Amino acid sequence: MTEFIPTERTQIHRLPKRGVYDREKVYSILDEGMVCHVGFVVDGKPVVIPTGYGRKGDTLYFHGSPASRMFQTLGKGVDVCITVTLVDGVVMARSAFHHSMNYRSVVIFGKASLLNDPDAKREALQAFTEHVAPGRWQEIRQPSEKELHSTIVLAMPLDEVSAKVRTGPPVDDEEDYALPVWAGVLPLELTPAAPVPDDRLPKETPVPDYVRAYSRQRT
Amino acid sequence: MTEFIPTERTQIHRLPKRGVYDREKVYSILDEGMVCHVGFVVDGKPVVIPTGYGRKGDTLYFHGSPASRMFQTLGKGVDVCITVTLVDGVVMARSAFHHSMNYRSVVIFGKASLLNDPDAKREALQAFTEHVAPGRWQEIRQPSEKELHSTIVLAMPLDEVSAKVRTGPPVDDEEDYALPVWAGVLPLELTPAAPVPDDRLPKETPVPDYVRAYSRQRT
Repeated sequence: MTEFIPTERTQIHRLPKRGVYDREKVYSILDEGMVCHVGFVVDGKPVVIPTGYGRKGDTLYFHGSPASRMFQTLGKGVDVCITVTLVDGVVMARSAFHHSMNYRSVVIFGKASLLNDPDAKREALQAFTEHVAPGRWQEIRQPSEKELHSTIVLAMPLDEVSAKVRTGPPVDDEEDYALPVWAGVLPLELTPAAPVPDDRLPKETPVPDYVRAYSRQRT
Repeated sequence: MTEFIPTERTQIHRLPKRGVYDREKVYSILDEGMVCHVGFVVDGKPVVIPTGYGRKGDTLYFHGSPASRMFQTLGKGVDVCITVTLVDGVVMARSAFHHSMNYRSVVIFGKASLLNDPDAKREALQAFTEHVAPGRWQEIRQPSEKELHSTIVLAMPLDEVSAKVRTGPPVDDEEDYALPVWAGVLPLELTPAAPVPDDRLPKETPVPDYVRAYSRQRT
């Protein structure tokens, strides 16, 4: 199946042409993002917390400490909404009213479940690490049994999912196009600066290619 | 008052040294961010939606269409959680377990209220536009009465607020420092690419300084 099936919650009503259900496009947004925003309900009120994540197939993984109230709550299988947003540019129109942003976002509804099997947890942490820096998992010390035990890993199924995308130039009212003001798009991208080696790293340690040529773009 | 007072919800329990309540630091995170994630409860379940925003003093403003279900819901004064997250870098440790991210995030709890007065709405939209591109408001066509009427503007008080910040190098287990793997921080920043002028813009239109030298850093 190449498309997610819209539900009442994921059907895009406002500006439906921005709605995207294509599985590969949803994957590419999730794989480019660094942080997801996890929403859940505590005492009837919303809480939204940012956290890292990884994806493998139709599962999103995130992990945290058993001492974290968020992970304790989510591990109980409560309803969750996870949102990932990429900012692609500022859309500058000739009128204040038509200013906008180019962006790609994914919203996922469902319930997360706890992973208990150490092998499943290890696989999830691999997806997590490779999400941050593809190639790194093979080079680092992998999790010990004790470390696996002291991490909560949650799996969120990609089932009830939609994406929303805006691209392209500003759209102004016809009579405003004559105004003498610059208009267009200023593209924005999350880009790396020069790597900062750890103080305790031996000077001769080579910088890996996946750090030197780091990019969030995924193919 | 220079600090936000922690409440039961905003007291940072996990890794308390990452907690920040300083008003100026909270402002600087909010002013650098582009998008906030708005969490609210619909039929007992969480919904998290990204949207743009602006800040003036101790109020966060965001706006949308009266046809949007989110803005209809929020305008009723329901409980809201608004979160802004800046990703500052990938923290690469020698072990998978100690990988982390440098980030700054702000979480705001409360209720948003509708602005009805046209002057208040105009002022909020000015804060919104200046947040995206400082200096632009004076150059563009400002909102007409009709446009103001067809926009919902919501004001969220900065009252119950906390920030969380991680900076600095990886922290590895002592015995892992000898491992022959690169470790350190790869800084990340939301940076502009070359501006893309609108197709219908006269060729001679100058690119404003706030576009040419665009930066999300605010002072």
